[in-house]
Order: sequence, then C-alpha cells, then structure tokens
Amino acid sequence: MVHSKEKLELLRNVLKERGVDVFIIPSTDPHLGEYTPDHWQIIKWLTGFTGSAGTVVVSDSFAGLWTDSRYFIQAERQLAGSGFEFVKPRAFQRNDYVDFIYETVKPGNTIAIDGRIFSVSRFRRLQKMLKGNQVLIEPDFDPIVDLWNDRPVLPFSTAFDHLVRFCGRDRSVKISEVREQMSRRNADYHLLTSPDDIMWLLNIRGNDLKYSPLLLSFALVGHDQMLLFIDEGKIPPVLAGEFDRLGIVILPYNEAYEITATVTEGASVLINPATTSVTFYNSISKNSKIIEDINIPASLKAIKNKTEIENIGNVMVEDGVALTRFFYWFYCNSGKLKMTENSLSDKLLEYRAEHEDFLGQSFPAIAAFNENSALPHYTPESQYGSEIGERGILLVDSGGQYTGGTTDITRTVPVGIPSARQREDFTLVLKGHINLALAKFPSGTRGSQLDFTARKALWESGMNYAHGTGHGVGFCLNVHEGPQSISQAENKTCIEPGMLTSNEPAIYREQEYGIRIENLILCYEDEETEFGQFLKFDTVSLCYIDKALIDKSLLDQKEIDWLNSYHSEVYDKLGPHLSPDEKIWLKEKTDPL
Amino acid sequence: MVHSKEKLELLRNVLKERGVDVFIIPSTDPHLGEYTPDHWQIIKWLTGFTGSAGTVVVSDSFAGLWTDSRYFIQAERQLAGSGFEFVKPRAFQRNDYVDFIYETVKPGNTIAIDGRIFSVSRFRRLQKMLKGNQVLIEPDFDPIVDLWNDRPVLPFSTAFDHLVRFCGRDRSVKISEVREQMSRRNADYHLLTSPDDIMWLLNIRGNDLKYSPLLLSFALVGHDQMLLFIDEGKIPPVLAGEFDRLGIVILPYNEAYEITATVTEGASVLINPATTSVTFYNSISKNSKIIEDINIPASLKAIKNKTEIENIGNVMVEDGVALTRFFYWFYCNSGKLKMTENSLSDKLLEYRAEHEDFLGQSFPAIAAFNENSALPHYTPESQYGSEIGERGILLVDSGGQYTGGTTDITRTVPVGIPSARQREDFTLVLKGHINLALAKFPSGTRGSQLDFTARKALWESGMNYAHGTGHGVGFCLNVHEGPQSISQAENKTCIEPGMLTSNEPAIYREQEYGIRIENLILCYEDEETEFGQFLKFDTVSLCYIDKALIDKSLLDQKEIDWLNSYHSEVYDKLGPHLSPDEKIWLKEKTDPL
Repeated sequence: MVHSKEKLELLRNVLKERGVDVFIIPSTDPHLGEYTPDHWQIIKWLTGFTGSAGTVVVSDSFAGLWTDSRYFIQAERQLAGSGFEFVKPRAFQRNDYVDFIYETVKPGNTIAIDGRIFSVSRFRRLQKMLKGNQVLIEPDFDPIVDLWNDRPVLPFSTAFDHLVRFCGRDRSVKISEVREQMSRRNADYHLLTSPDDIMWLLNIRGNDLKYSPLLLSFALVGHDQMLLFIDEGKIPPVLAGEFDRLGIVILPYNEAYEITATVTEGASVLINPATTSVTFYNSISKNSKIIEDINIPASLKAIKNKTEIENIGNVMVEDGVALTRFFYWFYCNSGKLKMTENSLSDKLLEYRAEHEDFLGQSFPAIAAFNENSALPHYTPESQYGSEIGERGILLVDSGGQYTGGTTDITRTVPVGIPSARQREDFTLVLKGHINLALAKFPSGTRGSQLDFTARKALWESGMNYAHGTGHGVGFCLNVHEGPQSISQAENKTCIEPGMLTSNEPAIYREQEYGIRIENLILCYEDEETEFGQFLKFDTVSLCYIDKALIDKSLLDQKEIDWLNSYHSEVYDKLGPHLSPDEKIWLKEKTDPL
Repeated sequence: MVHSKEKLELLRNVLKERGVDVFIIPSTDPHLGEYTPDHWQIIKWLTGFTGSAGTVVVSDSFAGLWTDSRYFIQAERQLAGSGFEFVKPRAFQRNDYVDFIYETVKPGNTIAIDGRIFSVSRFRRLQKMLKGNQVLIEPDFDPIVDLWNDRPVLPFSTAFDHLVRFCGRDRSVKISEVREQMSRRNADYHLLTSPDDIMWLLNIRGNDLKYSPLLLSFALVGHDQMLLFIDEGKIPPVLAGEFDRLGIVILPYNEAYEITATVTEGASVLINPATTSVTFYNSISKNSKIIEDINIPASLKAIKNKTEIENIGNVMVEDGVALTRFFYWFYCNSGKLKMTENSLSDKLLEYRAEHEDFLGQSFPAIAAFNENSALPHYTPESQYGSEIGERGILLVDSGGQYTGGTTDITRTVPVGIPSARQREDFTLVLKGHINLALAKFPSGTRGSQLDFTARKALWESGMNYAHGTGHGVGFCLNVHEGPQSISQAENKTCIEPGMLTSNEPAIYREQEYGIRIENLILCYEDEETEFGQFLKFDTVSLCYIDKALIDKSLLDQKEIDWLNSYHSEVYDKLGPHLSPDEKIWLKEKTDPL
C-alpha cells in the first residue's frame, strides 16, 4: 500500500510538471451530494481522512485539510503523520480554505480544480475572492486519474419501482408538475444532477450508494421528452417500457455533458448552481440561456404528501421497535457480555433488519462511549471501536432506509449511574429539544428564526453546540436533504407544512462525553387567526428518552407535560409490537416523570 | 391650494410630453435617510400622505402608493379622494411596487426616476426585476421642479461642536480610524452621503431636520484630505479653523457630485450602494473603481464607547424623569381636564424640554387613544387628535435628542379599568419584552435569531406584529440607525457589545387598541466559557411599566423577578429627581408585583 506521504510527493510532482501552484480537492463527486461512491473518495485515498465532508489544498509548500466541526477531532487523529495538516477554523467560524488561498497565492499563480466535482457556487466564491489577484484558475485538472492505480469502479445496481402506495403520486403526475413550474419560470429544460431529485421524480430507487437508495444518474427534463443519463443495464425491462411510454429516453451516463449541451442549444435551461458542476455548467452555458434557481424536484419533495406521511408514521413504529429492542437487550446484557461500540452498531442493525421493508442504514450508525461521544460524527478507528465500560455515557445515532421513509434518531443513555453534571447537561439539551418540538410560529418563518428556542437553555448556561439544530430528511432518500434547515446560519427557505426536519440539540464536552437528543419533526398547519396561519411540529420518531439522565428540577411544567405525553405515545404505539418482557421494561421507561 | 387630483393631472401631462410611461417617486431625499426636509417631501405634496416612508408609482392609467405596515390605515385614510390608490400588500409580505411594475409594463415602455433621490440598491432591484422586459429606465427625470411652485427651500442651521465629554473621542482620532479601515479595504476615498455618518465623524451637530440633529452634507474622505460639501455659512469660524487644521476642506453642497467625480478619477472609492444615489454613483463610477460595503462610520458609530454609554445612562434618567412627571400629571388630571392626544404630546414635550441639554424630539411623539393606538405609527389627522375618553388604552411612544444621547420609549397605560383581554394582551407583549431583555447569546448572533424570543408568547396565542422588534439607535443622531436590527427579516449584522437597540414587541387589534412596550437595550459582554464569549443586554430606558395591565398569572418567576428588579432600579434612579408627591406615586407604581 502506498502511504499518504508518498502519494503527496507523487501529486506534487504532477503539479510541478503541469505548472499548477495550488490544487483544490473537494470531497464531492459529479453529483455534488453528501455520500459518494468509493470511486470518488479521493480525499480518503490521498490523506486517510474518512469524514464525509472536507476540502484538501495542496501546493509545493503546503498540504492541508479543512472540514467542519463534526470532524475536528477525527481529522486531527487521522491526519497525524500523513503529511497533511488539519487546519482548524476558529470556533463558530466558516470553513475558510478560500481565505487561506486568498492570503497565500501570488500574482501569476495557477490554481487548479477538477471541474467535474466542483459546484458552480463554490467556484464562484473562489473566483470572487481571487478577483484582482491576477491568478489563473484552471477548471479541468485531474491528476488523480493517473495516480490512483487500484481505484474502485463506479457502482452498479438495478432500479426498483417505488410504488405509489409508498410515495403517493404517480411519476407522470410529478413530471407534469415539474413541467408546469418550468413553464412559469420560462425554462425549456431543467437539468437535474442530484440523483435524489431524479429518484423522486421517476419513483425509482437503487443501491449505488451505501446509505442512500440512489442510482447515479443525470436527467434533462424537457417539455415533451425527458433524457435520463444512466447505465442502461440499471433499468429493468418493465420500468424501461413504462419510461418509454412516458417519453423518457435512456442515454449513456458518460454522455450526459455532451448530449445536454447539444440538445439545449439556443434554449433556456433551469439549473441549480449549488448542485451543478463547473464542467456541466460550462458545457451548456456556451449555447444556452441559463436560469438559476433551486431545483424544482428539491422543493416539491421537501413537502411530504399524505401517503408519505402515513408511511412515515408506520416506519417510525418499526424503527422505534428496533431501537427499543436494542436498548432492552443492552439493558439486559450490559456488564454481562463484552460489548464494543461496533458490536452495538451491529446489534442495532440486526434489529432494524428484521423489518422486511428495511433497505439499509441511512448513514453509518454511531455508537459512541464516553469521550468518543464528544465527537458529533464519530467513526471508530479500529474495526471494533472502544469497549463499553462500567460507567459513562453512551450515544447512539442511527437511522434506516425503508420503502416507507427514512429515519434518523439519536438517544443518549447512561451506563451505570450518571453524574450530576451529566444529568444537568442532558436536561438542558432536553429542554432545547422540547422547546423546538413545542414551537408554534406563523407561516413564513425560516429555520434560523426557530433555532434560538433549541439553544436558549444551553446559552443561558454558557454552553452551545457548533452544528445545526435540524436538517431536512428525505423520503426513502437522503437522510440529509434540503432545502430547509434549522440552524444559526441563515437559510431563506421557510418551514412549510409537510416538511420533515430533525431536532437535535446537543452538548459536547471534549475528552469527556457528548449528549445529543434527536427526533424527526413534521411541520403541520395549526390554527389560522386574524394574524395569519400558524404552524406547529409533530414529533414522529418514537423511542423513550432516558429519565435516569433527567434532572426534573430543571424542567418547567410544560416541558414535563411534553415528555410525559411523548412517552405515553411511545408506549402506546410500540407496546403492541414488543414481547411481554420488553413491554414491561418499556412501561417503566415511559412512566410519567 | 392645488389638490392632489389636479397635481396628478399636471404630472401626467408632463409624463406624456416627455414620453415617460411609468414614474416612480420614493419618499427619500439625496441623503436617502428616514427624515427629509420639507423641500423633498414630494409624496406629501403630491398625494397628501404624511407617513415617513412610501413609494408612489404614476402611469397614464394608474396612480398608487405603497408603504409599510406602520402606515396602512393612515394611508387608506389620507389617500381617500386623492386620485391615488393605496396598494396594501398581503400581510407579512414585502412592499412590492416593483412586482407591480414588473407585471404591468410593456416592451418599449420608459420608466423614469429622479436618480438623485433613488439609491443604487433600489435601482438595481428594479433593473434586475425588469431585465429582459425590454423597457428603458430613464435615471435623470425630475418633473417636480416645474410643478411645485411654493416648494420650501432647503433648511439652514448652524453647526455646533459635539464635545468629547459627550462623544468620547476626538474627531481626529475618528478620522484616523476611518482611514485605517479604508486602507485595509484598499480604498483611496470613502464617500459619505448620510449626514449622520458625517456628524459622527466630525463631532458636529445641527438643526437642518426636525427630529435628527443633522446638517445636510456630503463628505469625501481621502487619506490626506477630507472634502466636506456643505453650505459654508453652516460652519462657524471656530469650527472652520479647527477643520482647516485637520485638512478638512469645505466646499459647496451642490457641487458635491461634480467635484467628487473629478477628485476620485482613477482612484478606488468605497461607497455603500444602499445610501448612495444613482446620480452620485453614476457620476463617479465612470472614472473610478468602486468598492461596495457598509459605510465605515456606520459600523463604528453603532458601537457606543464608554463615554457615550455613561452619557446614555445620565440621559435615561432625565428622559425617565420627564416621562414619570408626565404620567403623574396625567394620573392627577385624567377625567378632570379635557385632554386630547396632541395636548398630551405637547405636555410630554414640556417636561422633556425642562432639561437644559434637550435638543428636541427624536421623532414625532405618538399619543394614541384606543383605536388610534392600533396604528403603530399613528399621526392625528386634526391638529388636536382624538379626545382621551374615560376608559381605554393610551399608548405613548416618544423620544428625545439630548447632547448625551437619543431616546425612544413606549409605554401603554390604561385609562379607567382595563378589560381582561387587554390585560392578557399586555402581559403577552410584556413576556416578549422581558424575554428579549433577558436573552443571553454567543458572540456572532444576529438579531433575526433573537427575534423569536420576543414573539414566542404571542405566537403561542396565535398573535403577531407586522414590524421589527428592535432597531439600532444613534447617539445624539438618528433614532432609527443601522446596521443592526432585531427582526423577522434577515440582517447579516451581528449584535455586538456597545450596540444600542430598541426592544418593542407589540400587539395591534384593528379598530380597538394597540399595545407596545419599548425600552432601549445595550449589549454587553457577559461570561466567556469554553464555548465562547457570551453577550447580554442591559435595559437602559427608565420608566415604570403599568402593573394595572399585567395579569400576573401569565408570568413565570423569572419574568416577575425581572420586572421587580427593573422597577426597583427605576425608582432608585428617578426617585431623587422627583417631587415628594411624584415620588410617593412612583413608589406605588414600582412596588413589587
């Protein structure tokens, strides 16, 4: 195996040869989503860093990685001795590799990127920052193709029909709706580069990626035809026939750039610069009029329909039953069996996999004990992970992909007797969680306005967490899905009825423990008054919240009432699916506080 | 007197003659601030509408006014029979005259504005919206100059020195600081078009406007010299001599455009497109490199220094004493003397004017009874206003300009016995006010994130108010001053220590009554923890909050504690300046709840 240091040397040689002073490597693939196939995990191959997001910058005298706060500690560990330095931004500041480049480049320098995996938005930020610096940006540079010998091939899986009884709307209806919105924006074509948009639109799913039921594909929606760029073998004959009847033409995946550029010549094309690559953009913008906006399917699929909401309700019971069984098993065997973090993740997966419509995990489950739980997106370094000790904090963040929806839930439980400080921290996080769950707000409210209520109790105690409070969640699609979010950062999208979002305030005490409580919340219409339409959230995830970590004296009556009512719902909905022993145990776990 | 209908006809004739299809009239003057001299009150002269903000659009077949929610009811009343229609936007939506233009213009149309009173930002929004509509925008159109015969001349007042014991920093120090920041942004020049920026920078004040102690002026700050464009007679010899020593050159006000364009030729000029007019921008952008950002003095003056903060403390005592005496007088004479809304405003002004450093009101005081109080920025139609009846709600929103600061405070008091609904409404507004006053938040928090806490109690009851919660306040300058705000709308500016902001949640029951509670809050540094620096607010306005309107059962203990502690501070600080009778009365008003 070639080590990072050697790879870096080889890469630097290529940069020198080709006259490139700075090379920027993002963690994305040509679809610019969160999860990428092995083929595109260049940063992991090059540096050893396994986090899902990051940017590497390499020059003659520097090699470093920027990532977000989820991965700070992990990056520091994984990059040790790699030749790549971890550049930690100051707390609560943006991830500023662009600032670094701005400060270090010299006039006449050439900065290179691989435009196929670099979004237009990102490219523009770079361009804007470097405007006036007299540098050249080379947008078509790929030194990796020659350096990575044992590079994995692109994944191959077969599409399956995501039936209307799950997704609620026929693909022909969805396509019409997209076309209608295209007309309103005077768009002749709509280019889709995010597979989740395409899966939603065509009511298909696949297994190209480990954690998202997607097929790598591009699509160009026209008013009469729709071009689907995908490996032909991925579409079974029955679906292919149905697609044919709907005017969907299947074309080779790797001809997407060229065919799109030709087809759209002289026409107007709606694209989202945040999810379209520089290469794609450049190839079509030469001859077409570009209209920029969020993708239409992205907006439409964020609003879950009635059928989807019903399915989510059923899936939450399945998911909650798996979690309850897991925690009951843990309760019965803790201190008796040897357990590691990874054996716990595996056990939880076993329980989830008992459900027949379970498709896989929605992200790599995190089971983190004590100091590891202080890492928001911890991945064990060994294949076992740490051993679960006699006393401490266990954080379990996991989720499943089901044909009837996607789940994401975090519970933090004590092992042995928790300390007073742990109980106080847990209770403050719980207060934030409950207050967001209880929020009532007028139509037109953005997530950044609601974020305060999840942090208030922590802020009052001088604490905070350096990640968002909530992300959108797909429906049998990506576990992290826009356009909405609940976060300190501004996001123009308003929270609308039908949107499914996570609610996950947290606290991380470095080297000690972390606490996070996460449920999914579904927005619905509450009363309409003379002051407008008001909205509320329905908490849909179902699993007990451990009372052993609650300091009741810190909760007010509204908060206690919420918890008791939530627990009563958890017991009522999960109880019928549990064994008598599990049921008795859950009863005690969900008894009123 | 020529009536609005006739003026409209004359205006339409000019439009026809000059080939203009749509004429847009903003309420601003060449300095683009909130208050304008009579000379520039074109909308008032043309339509009769007296609100401080609005936009008029006139075409052959349409004449209408858009304004913000503060003036909806007033606009409807004042425009009746004027030939101008009031275009009410839907609730909680932006003020969309541009959408109207977008929807009604036809290819080939000419849209005209007077570029001297139209900001660059505003112009760009118009341009962007109309891009592709094949219309011509004529930026130098002024039909008013020929139509308005008895137009008032521009104001003339004399500058006075705003001493360092008030403002805390020598003008030479401020100029150096601005120049240093200009260097960091590579700006050779900084164009200032907002008189408040210029007054702050030069430590001068004047009386050109009724409610802001300003002198109409422009300034061009260079690294060696500073050009001040102002009527020479406005600067007394002593100040002129001092300015001369500092390299400040006084030049004619009406030559600002031309001289600036010449001087900055080939250089880089920092401007704020939101406060720079199209005419000014066009005149300099031909030959100079424009750098766009918020004005440097605007950012610097938002952070009050130690001396300013001390002075604000003293001014709040003076202002609070005036208010307390006023409310005591009202208590003693209510039901005995005949009182009207305007006689109350006058009485309050008398009490404020007793203080020797009082310069005038910071905005037209509002004394509004019952249904009038439901109009957030009510102005009585007659010169007396409504009579104060035996029972109802009286809202008093007022403020003063003092050499040691600017005040803005609202109190709502009952006349007779309030209804249960009034007490409930008042208490919900008070809860919002207290929760914002008590907010603790990390450094880096924007006002839009804090807005929630002021609205939470109202939202929970299905209520809301259609204006911001807080605006920045100047120091012996504009009562509404950026860059910060606390509002549902996004504003990138973070709330920083030293910023003075209003805290004014409210509720308006149309045709019945309005309730608003407003204090000014000063941000300061609280604890620094491992999670960062935390900030809090100090409430600096001093006046009792009427307990007769409070339903104690709706307040929690923290809220009761805040009120009792605030009241104890009010009594302790104001008491020594009151007569024995006033003091006894205030004691009862501020006794613990």
